[in-house]
Amino acid sequence: MDLFLRAALDEARLGLEEGGIPIGSVLVIDNEIVARGHNRRIQKSSAILHAEMDCLEQAGRLTAADYSRSILYSTLSPCDMCSGAALLYQVPKIIVGENRTFQGPEAYVKSRGVDVTVVNDPECIAIMERFIATHPALWNEDIGLPT
Amino acid sequence: MDLFLRAALDEARLGLEEGGIPIGSVLVIDNEIVARGHNRRIQKSSAILHAEMDCLEQAGRLTAADYSRSILYSTLSPCDMCSGAALLYQVPKIIVGENRTFQGPEAYVKSRGVDVTVVNDPECIAIMERFIATHPALWNEDIGLPT
Repeated sequence: MDLFLRAALDEARLGLEEGGIPIGSVLVIDNEIVARGHNRRIQKSSAILHAEMDCLEQAGRLTAADYSRSILYSTLSPCDMCSGAALLYQVPKIIVGENRTFQGPEAYVKSRGVDVTVVNDPECIAIMERFIATHPALWNEDIGLPT
Repeated sequence: MDLFLRAALDEARLGLEEGGIPIGSVLVIDNEIVARGHNRRIQKSSAILHAEMDCLEQAGRLTAADYSRSILYSTLSPCDMCSGAALLYQVPKIIVGENRTFQGPEAYVKSRGVDVTVVNDPECIAIMERFIATHPALWNEDIGLPT
């Protein structure tokens, strides 16, 4: 597996160890990880700290020039909110661990000029399949569905 | 002015008093304000706490049934990120104070079934015009543009 996607998956596992939803993300600029994040809905009782949002927040106030060279990695296909954050900051490239267990608005994001690559990595799929099977209500809450 | 939009504008003014970017938001359910928020980029050195995001975060972990009856007010047209958050949670209605100084992806949000109403209130326009004129770099940073 790509080392950066591996780092995002490590974040997902860290979230799981904390009792959270196992989705992780890293932001890469000039071939270096500048920020890491994971879903913190449960840990911080947060409605907005999806993995990618947490990662972008950990990165702090970057410049447009920084974002223009960045790649956002996520273990799971970014939802409407996280996709929108990437569009706001004009992140040019997103690497998605998998979109089998959930698929965000990838076609729309691509139509806005973003290079979206979906890996469908077996480990990324497996960690979400296990979580969704054991915590369906939490998962539905996280994606805005009735629990 | 609509009392709820007035409350959002009060939040924008509170942000300005704190030295922040003057954009405010409230979330209304069953004709009551359940959360208030304002842009906290400067106050919290945050890349994700736009007014609407701050408001949704202050609202906490709501159910899909809660969101389905909600109206999101913002003094300014929601950007890609904030629009995406509203789409994630299937907020059915957004009231926008103004879209003269900035316009988010309103057509896309409408195409996803959201009722978007733009008031173009003179006070909402004025507070942003003054801020943008005096702090152009901060404003550009907030919407992902080069400073």
